[in-house]
Amino acid sequence: MAWWKVSSAGRDVNPDLGSERECPSFNVETLTNILDEGAEETRLRRAIVSAIIKDPVFSREFLYFKTRAERYEGAVRNSIHIKKKLKEMGWEENGREFAYIVRAVGGEIGFNIHKLFLTTISALGTDEQISKWLPLGNSYKIFGTYAQTELGHGTNLRGLETTATFDPSTQEFIIDTPQITATKWWPGDLGKTCTHAVVLAQLYSNGKKYGMHPFIVQVRSLKDHSPLPGISVGDIGPKMSFENIDNGYLIMRNIRVPRENMLSRYSQVLPDGSYVKRGSDKINYFTMIAVRVGMLREEVLEALTKACTISVRYSAVRRQSELKPGDREPKILDYQTQQQKLLPLVATCYSIHFTGKYVAKFFNDVSGKIRKENFSLLPELHALTAGMKAFATEMCSNGVEICRKACGGHGYSLYSGIPSLYTGVTASCTYEGENTVLHLQVARFLLKCFAGAQSGTPIPTSTAYLSSPPASGCHARTPADFLNPEVYLKAYEYRAYSLVTSAANKMQNLVQSGSEQYAAWNGTSVELVKTSIAHAHLLTVKIFISALNLASDHPEIKVVLKRLCDLYALHGIFTSAGDFLHHGYLSGKQLDMATTAYLGLLAELRKDAVLLVDAFDYTDDELLSAIGTYDGNVYHNLLEWAQKNPENKKVNPVFETYLKPCIQSNPSKL
Amino acid sequence: MAWWKVSSAGRDVNPDLGSERECPSFNVETLTNILDEGAEETRLRRAIVSAIIKDPVFSREFLYFKTRAERYEGAVRNSIHIKKKLKEMGWEENGREFAYIVRAVGGEIGFNIHKLFLTTISALGTDEQISKWLPLGNSYKIFGTYAQTELGHGTNLRGLETTATFDPSTQEFIIDTPQITATKWWPGDLGKTCTHAVVLAQLYSNGKKYGMHPFIVQVRSLKDHSPLPGISVGDIGPKMSFENIDNGYLIMRNIRVPRENMLSRYSQVLPDGSYVKRGSDKINYFTMIAVRVGMLREEVLEALTKACTISVRYSAVRRQSELKPGDREPKILDYQTQQQKLLPLVATCYSIHFTGKYVAKFFNDVSGKIRKENFSLLPELHALTAGMKAFATEMCSNGVEICRKACGGHGYSLYSGIPSLYTGVTASCTYEGENTVLHLQVARFLLKCFAGAQSGTPIPTSTAYLSSPPASGCHARTPADFLNPEVYLKAYEYRAYSLVTSAANKMQNLVQSGSEQYAAWNGTSVELVKTSIAHAHLLTVKIFISALNLASDHPEIKVVLKRLCDLYALHGIFTSAGDFLHHGYLSGKQLDMATTAYLGLLAELRKDAVLLVDAFDYTDDELLSAIGTYDGNVYHNLLEWAQKNPENKKVNPVFETYLKPCIQSNPSKL
Repeated sequence: MAWWKVSSAGRDVNPDLGSERECPSFNVETLTNILDEGAEETRLRRAIVSAIIKDPVFSREFLYFKTRAERYEGAVRNSIHIKKKLKEMGWEENGREFAYIVRAVGGEIGFNIHKLFLTTISALGTDEQISKWLPLGNSYKIFGTYAQTELGHGTNLRGLETTATFDPSTQEFIIDTPQITATKWWPGDLGKTCTHAVVLAQLYSNGKKYGMHPFIVQVRSLKDHSPLPGISVGDIGPKMSFENIDNGYLIMRNIRVPRENMLSRYSQVLPDGSYVKRGSDKINYFTMIAVRVGMLREEVLEALTKACTISVRYSAVRRQSELKPGDREPKILDYQTQQQKLLPLVATCYSIHFTGKYVAKFFNDVSGKIRKENFSLLPELHALTAGMKAFATEMCSNGVEICRKACGGHGYSLYSGIPSLYTGVTASCTYEGENTVLHLQVARFLLKCFAGAQSGTPIPTSTAYLSSPPASGCHARTPADFLNPEVYLKAYEYRAYSLVTSAANKMQNLVQSGSEQYAAWNGTSVELVKTSIAHAHLLTVKIFISALNLASDHPEIKVVLKRLCDLYALHGIFTSAGDFLHHGYLSGKQLDMATTAYLGLLAELRKDAVLLVDAFDYTDDELLSAIGTYDGNVYHNLLEWAQKNPENKKVNPVFETYLKPCIQSNPSKL
Repeated sequence: MAWWKVSSAGRDVNPDLGSERECPSFNVETLTNILDEGAEETRLRRAIVSAIIKDPVFSREFLYFKTRAERYEGAVRNSIHIKKKLKEMGWEENGREFAYIVRAVGGEIGFNIHKLFLTTISALGTDEQISKWLPLGNSYKIFGTYAQTELGHGTNLRGLETTATFDPSTQEFIIDTPQITATKWWPGDLGKTCTHAVVLAQLYSNGKKYGMHPFIVQVRSLKDHSPLPGISVGDIGPKMSFENIDNGYLIMRNIRVPRENMLSRYSQVLPDGSYVKRGSDKINYFTMIAVRVGMLREEVLEALTKACTISVRYSAVRRQSELKPGDREPKILDYQTQQQKLLPLVATCYSIHFTGKYVAKFFNDVSGKIRKENFSLLPELHALTAGMKAFATEMCSNGVEICRKACGGHGYSLYSGIPSLYTGVTASCTYEGENTVLHLQVARFLLKCFAGAQSGTPIPTSTAYLSSPPASGCHARTPADFLNPEVYLKAYEYRAYSLVTSAANKMQNLVQSGSEQYAAWNGTSVELVKTSIAHAHLLTVKIFISALNLASDHPEIKVVLKRLCDLYALHGIFTSAGDFLHHGYLSGKQLDMATTAYLGLLAELRKDAVLLVDAFDYTDDELLSAIGTYDGNVYHNLLEWAQKNPENKKVNPVFETYLKPCIQSNPSKL
């Protein structure tokens, strides 16, 4: 009877959201299938997500109230239950099924670095080492971690200080943390879980230093989990997010491990202490690239697609202020400023989606070649994955935060689901290669390609635009001209080309006027970062244009994807206008035309906004958002969730302790 | 003996940080005094901070481990203890002393909205109401809140739905929440603390609607704190931050309050239900402005100055990668890319500091006039405070996050102190007026001033640049020319002028081609927001230039402040280059010169970076950062804090429950 006793069962869709779906300009299901690369894949994904969500063990109810300890315990419980589930359902542990499971449980799993521990052994261990350690790890007889980063050392592997000194008298390595900065720091599963670790350490043998190598070290007892003698290990404490992960620290004082514990596929220490290297360990480097490929879609893009789904739906329900005098408060999605916040981000989701697929395909192609010992494409693959990792993590993190703020006060509540998306995804700007460092690596690659092009050496396809100066001015004469992909693609090529040439010239000038090479590099690095961003931006535009062909059989979908592609490209021109105006490629008038075209697209795409996020196909359980549910019952959800809050069921203990003594001292007549 | 048993007592300053302070180009203490506006104020601030920090009741140890319930209890305890402390020390409750106390306890206090409850009664109550309610509130016999925002309504006050209907038969108002969207939502101190609320509601009397008015409503029993009949009240749940605040919801079903509970200084309902208005309630509007003035310095700027202190110090200690081949890893502060992240933010701290002082002074001047019923400067004051609130909250929030990311992995640990600064300060973009809404209000003011200037009406000083078109091109011929404040000030004036005129023209064209006024406004709003930002940016540059005079007696400080001012201005040109190039005010070559000047300043200011943040004068206890302490013992702190983690002292219960059964089932021979 009372309207504020709400129930989520059998609710009608909020008419404000329902009306957005009434006259769709395209079939949402078809678009979902295109994103999934086939209807069959959509079906499989839904089946897995639904099976997981039905299972009460995986329930995420009250997640936003849980302490770190509870989140950690839940993640471990989930992981162990998933193992059972995989067997029961006949799903593959290392296939796409697992990715869908992770999606369904919202990332609340443990043993992530245990997995990396096993991958590392597979990649770097001998057959003998693999056959000893893999079964133990796979059956959870041991739990591992991968201990690389140190308290004082991150990106620069050569700077790591942990040592492994071979003692031929006992045929052991002595693993040691020589000073505080060498403390292993950050590995997941290390803080409270693992029994073993692959430890990266500087190898010394017969007084000679051989650089970083991996060693298997046991850190905790299998009997009672206590740290082994000489080991100091623990959790590094609370972080901005990742409550479910026990990132840890590890100090090792002269820990002895047998000679066989050095992973020896590519290099080995013989009993007499002599060091043997065999084959190329470029493959090692390749593992890092694989991680970057995977994270694009599974961690980074997922955060932005969820945030867009939530904020676009909310913006179709929320009504605020006045537009036309006397009219009802409009939906906030009808404000141009709101469209300008959200719609370019929806376009970014599609852009990064297609980019992620493109990068994965390129990675697979190169993997095939590498397996045949052909490493020729490795530099391009490295530049592509490093640049896209840096570009996409920045775009997606910033984008999630824009979505959150676009939901006003309710976006600040954990119930909106967006704060935790942000505090999680922003870490991706730092891990797996800090973004600025990566951009500078890409810039080095670009300068090399540019120098190659100057001297007539063949250069990688992705940098073909560096081979000759682009046309010197844009030919657009109307706003509509800017809806031509050739027009904006050329503008992006010009921008990237001019930034690369400017940076190369500056470097050269500095060196010619007496700077040392390293100082010239450092003095140009702000501009070098810009070249890498412009290059990555160009690639994403190019990839998006090509992806339009995926919808060739569905003209009405092609229309909307083309609009998204246009919006994505023109938004970049609008927000980085300086780069396009700088050398006169665009005139001020042409920038005005591009802006007109851009703002026109906002109005066009506003109509499809809800459908475009519906196509990401998240269930309410996956979103875990009071303001982003499919039915748009925003206010009922918020109130219901607040009323469910366990804190609201208790008497406030602070009343007795602090408030009552004030109120009732010398009581008033109230 | 063991090096990893660390103690913070009597530690030496890390030489990497010490060396930064060895040959200071200016006296840090003098700069601190200038920021404090006098040595006497520095002394007072330090005395208060030191007294608070010494008091064990206020200890913030383990803050990063506390649950929401513990943070809330701590905040209440602090507030009650502060009351005692004020008496004991003879400090003023409403003066600067209180601001320093809040700074010293890091904002961990409660009863913030209780304060607003009392301010509101003072401002809007009759003398009789004031003398009844204020003593009760001041002595904590009752606790109040201010309930305005509703679940479905934020910025637009006219949209609020709570009703107050006068019943002449009982001489009472009936306060009612007519539907779910009218649920009061967000007020602090409402969730678990308050006994009373000032409720904003639509007044109805004799069937007529009179708009929003404030009513005092009791919500909880003074005896046992239980909600009164007809009241449903509770906490709205966890947020991105503000763990210590019990933001709440409130539903009222036909609650009756006596006629005297309507705050009646400016309007009253007489016993027969007739409505009387007396005097102007513009003063009400004025309270909102006062809040915005206060938050600039106390909430928003504080977050950025702390984040800069932490990240600059850390960057002088952290060594990473390689710059000059063969050399030791350099301090990351020596990388141009790191300087480009942090130094413009240090400059922004100084800019917003002087802007905050300027706004406060303007506010005080206008207050004086308003007390004499002269409201002529109110529109300019509103535009100034709205624009600066939106501009500064955005700059500071984004800046804190840049600082955090610039600290790499350690920036992601709560121990760095920066994550909680960000999750706190970002809320300021939304509360006290959502930034986009505020920018549009300022834009409306700017268009009005522009139209006034066109028709010869006098316009406010802050918009004087709109009165005539600025010179059409910049005269700079060398990078050094861009170190002339006149040069960049003119560029900023040109930018703001051209954006205002473009937006005005676009509006006019749209209306002339048949758009309705409201649609033309909406269709121009993306550009209108840009005009407000450019206007605010211009004002901050102008204010910074004037502030250089504060250091007239200290030439060496004037030099460094001048560099900061230059950097602040040129960074804006570098990052918003499009606006300056668009209409040809700067040529591409001139932009290159500005960039050269800008990058040169980074190298200059790098030398003073640590001193410039030392001048903000935060104690280690205030910063609560393992990586930002004055002595730079970053790694010792991190390890020490991790080892102190209560979780690390316990046996991991997950081992017994989940891990052991796996490890010991069918045990291996390991």
